[in-house]
Amino acid sequence: MCGIVGLTGHQPVNQAIYDALTVVQHRGQDAAGIMTCEGDRLFLRKSNGLVRDVFAAEHMLRLRGNMGIGHCRYPTAGSSSSSEAQPLYTNSPYGIALAHNGNLTNAGELRELLYREDLRHLNTDSDSEILLNVFAHELQRAGKLKLEAGDIFAAVSAVHHRCRGGYAAVALITGYGLVAFRDPWGIRPLVFGVRETEQGREYMVASESVALSALGFELVRDVAPGEGIIIDSEGQLHTHQCAEGPSANPCLFEFVYFARPDSIMDDVSVYKARLRMGDTLAEKINREWPDNDIDVVIPIPDTSRTAALQVAFQLGVKYREGFMKNRYIGRTFIMPGQKQRKKSVRQKLNAIDLEFRGKNVLLVDDSIVRGTTSREIIQMARDAGAKNVYFASAAPPVRYPNVYGIDMPTTDELIAHGRSTEEVCELIGADRLFYQDLPDLVEAVRIGNPGLKTFDTSVFDGHYVTGDVSEEYLARLARERSDAAKSKKDNQYRGVIDLHNAS
Amino acid sequence: MCGIVGLTGHQPVNQAIYDALTVVQHRGQDAAGIMTCEGDRLFLRKSNGLVRDVFAAEHMLRLRGNMGIGHCRYPTAGSSSSSEAQPLYTNSPYGIALAHNGNLTNAGELRELLYREDLRHLNTDSDSEILLNVFAHELQRAGKLKLEAGDIFAAVSAVHHRCRGGYAAVALITGYGLVAFRDPWGIRPLVFGVRETEQGREYMVASESVALSALGFELVRDVAPGEGIIIDSEGQLHTHQCAEGPSANPCLFEFVYFARPDSIMDDVSVYKARLRMGDTLAEKINREWPDNDIDVVIPIPDTSRTAALQVAFQLGVKYREGFMKNRYIGRTFIMPGQKQRKKSVRQKLNAIDLEFRGKNVLLVDDSIVRGTTSREIIQMARDAGAKNVYFASAAPPVRYPNVYGIDMPTTDELIAHGRSTEEVCELIGADRLFYQDLPDLVEAVRIGNPGLKTFDTSVFDGHYVTGDVSEEYLARLARERSDAAKSKKDNQYRGVIDLHNAS
Amino acid sequence: MCGIVGLTGHQPVNQAIYDALTVVQHRGQDAAGIMTCEGDRLFLRKSNGLVRDVFAAEHMLRLRGNMGIGHCRYPTAGSSSSSEAQPLYTNSPYGIALAHNGNLTNAGELRELLYREDLRHLNTDSDSEILLNVFAHELQRAGKLKLEAGDIFAAVSAVHHRCRGGYAAVALITGYGLVAFRDPWGIRPLVFGVRETEQGREYMVASESVALSALGFELVRDVAPGEGIIIDSEGQLHTHQCAEGPSANPCLFEFVYFARPDSIMDDVSVYKARLRMGDTLAEKINREWPDNDIDVVIPIPDTSRTAALQVAFQLGVKYREGFMKNRYIGRTFIMPGQKQRKKSVRQKLNAIDLEFRGKNVLLVDDSIVRGTTSREIIQMARDAGAKNVYFASAAPPVRYPNVYGIDMPTTDELIAHGRSTEEVCELIGADRLFYQDLPDLVEAVRIGNPGLKTFDTSVFDGHYVTGDVSEEYLARLARERSDAAKSKKDNQYRGVIDLHNAS
Amino acid sequence: MCGIVGLTGHQPVNQAIYDALTVVQHRGQDAAGIMTCEGDRLFLRKSNGLVRDVFAAEHMLRLRGNMGIGHCRYPTAGSSSSSEAQPLYTNSPYGIALAHNGNLTNAGELRELLYREDLRHLNTDSDSEILLNVFAHELQRAGKLKLEAGDIFAAVSAVHHRCRGGYAAVALITGYGLVAFRDPWGIRPLVFGVRETEQGREYMVASESVALSALGFELVRDVAPGEGIIIDSEGQLHTHQCAEGPSANPCLFEFVYFARPDSIMDDVSVYKARLRMGDTLAEKINREWPDNDIDVVIPIPDTSRTAALQVAFQLGVKYREGFMKNRYIGRTFIMPGQKQRKKSVRQKLNAIDLEFRGKNVLLVDDSIVRGTTSREIIQMARDAGAKNVYFASAAPPVRYPNVYGIDMPTTDELIAHGRSTEEVCELIGADRLFYQDLPDLVEAVRIGNPGLKTFDTSVFDGHYVTGDVSEEYLARLARERSDAAKSKKDNQYRGVIDLHNAS
Repeated sequence: MCGIVGLTGHQPVNQAIYDALTVVQHRGQDAAGIMTCEGDRLFLRKSNGLVRDVFAAEHMLRLRGNMGIGHCRYPTAGSSSSSEAQPLYTNSPYGIALAHNGNLTNAGELRELLYREDLRHLNTDSDSEILLNVFAHELQRAGKLKLEAGDIFAAVSAVHHRCRGGYAAVALITGYGLVAFRDPWGIRPLVFGVRETEQGREYMVASESVALSALGFELVRDVAPGEGIIIDSEGQLHTHQCAEGPSANPCLFEFVYFARPDSIMDDVSVYKARLRMGDTLAEKINREWPDNDIDVVIPIPDTSRTAALQVAFQLGVKYREGFMKNRYIGRTFIMPGQKQRKKSVRQKLNAIDLEFRGKNVLLVDDSIVRGTTSREIIQMARDAGAKNVYFASAAPPVRYPNVYGIDMPTTDELIAHGRSTEEVCELIGADRLFYQDLPDLVEAVRIGNPGLKTFDTSVFDGHYVTGDVSEEYLARLARERSDAAKSKKDNQYRGVIDLHNAS
Repeated sequence: MCGIVGLTGHQPVNQAIYDALTVVQHRGQDAAGIMTCEGDRLFLRKSNGLVRDVFAAEHMLRLRGNMGIGHCRYPTAGSSSSSEAQPLYTNSPYGIALAHNGNLTNAGELRELLYREDLRHLNTDSDSEILLNVFAHELQRAGKLKLEAGDIFAAVSAVHHRCRGGYAAVALITGYGLVAFRDPWGIRPLVFGVRETEQGREYMVASESVALSALGFELVRDVAPGEGIIIDSEGQLHTHQCAEGPSANPCLFEFVYFARPDSIMDDVSVYKARLRMGDTLAEKINREWPDNDIDVVIPIPDTSRTAALQVAFQLGVKYREGFMKNRYIGRTFIMPGQKQRKKSVRQKLNAIDLEFRGKNVLLVDDSIVRGTTSREIIQMARDAGAKNVYFASAAPPVRYPNVYGIDMPTTDELIAHGRSTEEVCELIGADRLFYQDLPDLVEAVRIGNPGLKTFDTSVFDGHYVTGDVSEEYLARLARERSDAAKSKKDNQYRGVIDLHNAS
Repeated sequence: MCGIVGLTGHQPVNQAIYDALTVVQHRGQDAAGIMTCEGDRLFLRKSNGLVRDVFAAEHMLRLRGNMGIGHCRYPTAGSSSSSEAQPLYTNSPYGIALAHNGNLTNAGELRELLYREDLRHLNTDSDSEILLNVFAHELQRAGKLKLEAGDIFAAVSAVHHRCRGGYAAVALITGYGLVAFRDPWGIRPLVFGVRETEQGREYMVASESVALSALGFELVRDVAPGEGIIIDSEGQLHTHQCAEGPSANPCLFEFVYFARPDSIMDDVSVYKARLRMGDTLAEKINREWPDNDIDVVIPIPDTSRTAALQVAFQLGVKYREGFMKNRYIGRTFIMPGQKQRKKSVRQKLNAIDLEFRGKNVLLVDDSIVRGTTSREIIQMARDAGAKNVYFASAAPPVRYPNVYGIDMPTTDELIAHGRSTEEVCELIGADRLFYQDLPDLVEAVRIGNPGLKTFDTSVFDGHYVTGDVSEEYLARLARERSDAAKSKKDNQYRGVIDLHNAS
Repeated sequence: MCGIVGLTGHQPVNQAIYDALTVVQHRGQDAAGIMTCEGDRLFLRKSNGLVRDVFAAEHMLRLRGNMGIGHCRYPTAGSSSSSEAQPLYTNSPYGIALAHNGNLTNAGELRELLYREDLRHLNTDSDSEILLNVFAHELQRAGKLKLEAGDIFAAVSAVHHRCRGGYAAVALITGYGLVAFRDPWGIRPLVFGVRETEQGREYMVASESVALSALGFELVRDVAPGEGIIIDSEGQLHTHQCAEGPSANPCLFEFVYFARPDSIMDDVSVYKARLRMGDTLAEKINREWPDNDIDVVIPIPDTSRTAALQVAFQLGVKYREGFMKNRYIGRTFIMPGQKQRKKSVRQKLNAIDLEFRGKNVLLVDDSIVRGTTSREIIQMARDAGAKNVYFASAAPPVRYPNVYGIDMPTTDELIAHGRSTEEVCELIGADRLFYQDLPDLVEAVRIGNPGLKTFDTSVFDGHYVTGDVSEEYLARLARERSDAAKSKKDNQYRGVIDLHNAS
């Protein structure tokens, strides 16, 4: 997962993009980058690390111009498919920079065609480089020196035609302006907002609305599925539906886990959706176990607190923060002659015995993926003296991999894949396990915007809205991740190559 | 404020001290350092930054030995008095390293004597360098090649005799072992624990018990006020009361704000104490305003959540996390021709309008110091649509400066200094303001350990337990801070000097 | 001026290119870069600094592959035209990397056309980026997936057709191989060599033959003016004359000053040429001043030593190294409140009084450009006690700017521009001044390879072989340099921008 | 070997010490450091690397004050005895910083006593830390708050009494001034000079006179063997002979190889001494081989050029610089799966075939130590086509280790140890070998200052002037170096420890 930001204004944008990236940093803490444009020049800084570590004063000084894009990257395990920092750049045509959140499901085919037909070199394994070059090639096809909005929308249409998957992108076209577009299925989120300044109107595009409000922009609306929007160098906004037959299928996991609770996505308050997830989860517990003996509800920090609070409220029992999170986790160093030791959950969480001792506790988490963390936490609760440990997941069982940009293990690693709730319960060592029902989860989100009919629910039910994700595809994906893991050292070198036209 | 750690064992201690420092990192995020001892050699790494940024693999490799101490430092504004990273070292006698949490009230006089009588050079403004050299000088006085526990305890006694203030220290004596001691007034916290390993018993000393439990050590007890403890190189524990007439006066602010809730300090669970602070605060609200119209209780994250939850529970109204904290705050860069802009509270907190719109909200914070943040947050609540904004502080009015190691503004900057609750209420723009009563706060902590008779309550009532803090002292302190602020650029250079015997 | 290197082999080339760059480092100490190719991937490291400072182990690890190019850059004062580090890259078509030594005289026009006709974005002021994109565009025109040598030679021909100036370039075409070409006027040097290894034949291209011999390659020959050479991924060498009517006009300044004496350029030993420059210079002195009273010949280290030794030999007087060079020059720091002070020649050279006191000394330098250094050195000789100070320049008066890649001041700054030998002599404060005659200099070089008919003698006689350097051109150049100097701070930021597709 | 500098003045000394260190950088390129004093504060910057790499603007800014010392360190192979960067510091008494060039022969004994008697901790293997602490202890003994020159001279006398070996040191005493002293045998060089400024008289102490002249100081004289000199904070110079029965025994190797030719040492011009070495070497060749067939004399750059020029002159044959030195040597990286390869001489030197082909060449070097380099160079000469290769060494056979501060291999590694000239000649593959005779070398230097009676000639004749270097001592030294080499990785960690009182 990644966070993206785009901004055009009438004053330097470096600090504003920097600040916006810190606001969407929860979407990716692995790498960060900003590219700005002034006149016919692009300026770039990107590197591995948190936003606050990547940018020093000397970098900010060079990031000149009133137009720019930014990106923060999620560390993707086992796959190098998005292992390179963004934004990315191609100088032909025009000079185009692009930053992207998502994943293309037909990347292999596109990569082949870009090389064979368009003679374009891809130097990374990144989907974003593919997306950039497809977009660049389609713009080049027009071959016009003076671009017009229509040319760019045509190129976005061609991108939609060629690419499948979930993608939300921001791009700079040197000398023209800022472009943003979202996949025709509306899987990945993208919003835009406006701010009136003394110098004139300024626009901002971002993965989440919190970035807008933190910077003083007012949310205009979501970029529609398939839509393209342009803010040209004169500050004019152009929007156009570039896809045929678009549909909205927002990723449910954004609401469950990924997005900040204070964001509004596809017109739905994430915070409210999570409260409703708590409501329905509590209803299910009451329904399935009306005479439960739960003494206290304890969230697994931080994401699940919102839902857990509501679960407690609806169950009529105490809500207590029994786990403290260590916010300053460090590394585990491998000394000569030592083996790598895994940071255990115990270094990240600490149980306050008082809240567990002799009690029947209901732990609430947003979801259960591999199940290993859940098992460790349940054991911590027992060690802290809990009489019984019940576990509730605000999301239904995760049974299928995500192919639209959320880094998730392969099928075999998902604890719920091919297992019943009882089996998972036993494996994680809980005394009782409650999963949200998928229709309840869908409804918890949908109530916020009844206009939404469908969602990307693939990780729960294996239904992939782009229609091109076959058994073979998933098997190949699993194989590639396994290979990638094996040649990790290899990827490490690849992941840090430099290709730039100026140091 | 700072966090300190000391550890002796039968295996390399570098990773364990590193991990422990991340656990007490909340006590200081400005700088970090570790010194270890192997045979007759000391190894050091320290620098400005978070623990995770200060230590790289190359540094860990050099931090050799089964005995070591660590330190993390709080950024002290306006005063350079603890601006240098620790541990500190002197090579005469024996080779002694020391790390320290606290502040000496007779530093000026000690500094003068060290130079004039003991001919010892102090190269920083740090109290810790004074403490180290007083300790070193007293050991040198004995002049013995083969130290015995008694010699060291005698030196600690002499330190207590010469030094006044709040201090908790860990020290390494090359070739001898680990030493820890705590001021005779018991102002600053210090605990120790034990761990049985296959190689034998290992001891750990730390500012807070969470560091012990995170590393698998069992809390033995607090180091008593005035007590000295030694773990020699054979792993033997020696303890001795080194002060005449010690008394326990733990700093109340540790319980209110500074300590991690999952710590046990002077036998009191910080978490429980905070719950009780919520109880008494709610009682006071109910008492003063029985027919209140509060709709919802909203904590100012993160510290006040524990108390706020209990306030809501006792008031019988909803508890809601209406403010979201941005956990990835970055810098504000000053571009050429720009002025420094202040990071506003709005970049750190975001209000979820839903929880405020049309409601009477009670905001709960741990304390009110300058009042500027409170005012900004209250305005945010109003902007988010709150009908009425009430404010409750888990601590009583802060009216006097802290001279025992907590970085706090001078008298004039404290909003409650010389002002009534009503006046503060008006200044911060609240519709109603509730302060915890001091006896209630004392009791909320004391219930956990009835053995505690008195506390350091100086910031609330101006009573300084060391008996040497006069009006003149406070006036001079205010002047020095003001001077220090003026010559900040100056201090900046001082703050980064290097004095080491090997690069 | 810059140094370039290209290498293809049957084993990793990173260390070999690194070593070769240290051998040609005298051609540029400002920045260094290496790009290698493995399969369809390119790997890059470049930065400001000496080769030994730019490349650390982590960078070498990523520079994978059996094919690569390298570059070291000269710091160009007053002009940002080559201020960016190389190699440079474009991903369309094929993925092409290029490193270049020289300067294009029609850069402005090419830049305009590249943008308007070819829609290619140039993000730097570098001629090299122009050369890369002209080459890339001409390859793209062919539009073939499977390139053949003929296609590449056709592109080189088109480059020659479009570009004017002095240029020697090495390029990588991903998936195809290494390409090198030299301007049709043969101004800038380029040689290639071969090495037989157990794995097969390996080829190397470099600015100077010393790079070949240091790496164990045997010099095959110079790349001919206008010629293109390719070593494909199978290791096959292809050569082709790509220019119509090429001619050889090697830059005389390479022989006078720039090249290492142990290099062979255009079949001429630089060392021998310099000895002959000493012979003819001595002849002129004897001719003009048969009854001279010169006591000793003293070279200005390092370049002039070879010629000076021969001058002394032919004059029959002692040769003595009276100036010692400080090889560890540092920076002059500007402290707050101070102004920049210039490093004087005295910090770089030290006179050994003994060799000057009471003597008539003849100082020999390779050339006189601005004259400021000569003046300082002559004064040093007087301060050391010299009776009379005579000065001889192995090159004729430098009266015109260089537009083919050697960084030289504009016309007005050249001390000999519009001045007689006597006037220059007076300005630099010498008692007598001898300049080499241009025909003698030409002959000193030409004797080594009688096949050479003409040279680039532009800095001496204002004759520019490319035929397109008008008064207007030189005037514009002077203006641009002046503007560039004014907006130096500006360029500073531009000079460090980053544009890469992976961090 | 190391270079040291001390300076007191009426203006900031940071830049001046920095510049002076670049002038003596030839004495040590491994590490550099500067410590300055302002009021009662010391400021330090030191690190591995060249002066120009160690000091950045931020470091210079902190190096405040009008008084300071500097050091550059030679990389010592096989022994960690001076592996730590200087200056070093102790805070008891007064705050003393010291930088040192040389080696103590009774270091082991001193180390033991410092610990046992003085209770002083030494955290490195450095002799300099011993010297610092002996000096500090002797000052402490006086125990006076107000130091007078006499107290300091008494301490220097005590240092001379306790320490044996070659040592030249500069020290800062906080609040007092700059101190410098030289061993009673006058083995290591030390000079001082004076400069009149508008603000008053300023003094500088340095290893070599070139540092004085480069900074505009006039050489006053050498510090006499055993002498101490003080420049107090008022700028007053105090000098005192602190040794009983001092004698001058300057190290001959300084004149042969180490010192810059433009230095004056013990009143002898190094340059002139080297010319005379050429004279006597030529005489010996003429004497031993009157009818020699030498065609050309070729120096091994850079040191031997001065002597070689005179050899050629006296032999009446041509002098030619047949070897070119590569001045930009880089590293050899060890890639995974590779072994360390040695940088061969061929990467450092390149032969110009022309000067060798078919000729009888006499190569002149300053000395032959291990012989491996000589062998490689002779082979290069043969490969370049030399008919016969003769070799002359400006120094006599090196047969014994150096124990006074010059890093030299142990006895067994010296090619001339236990071998005749003929045997060495055969081993290095020369057709004929000429060694300077020791009396000739002594005389070549002595002529410059007839007052010098004796020299440290130990590496040539095994006579150690300090009288304490026995067979056992040398055997232990060899053992330690061998052990040190084995545990090199170990030392590496030690070599980079940090011990400072402020980051």
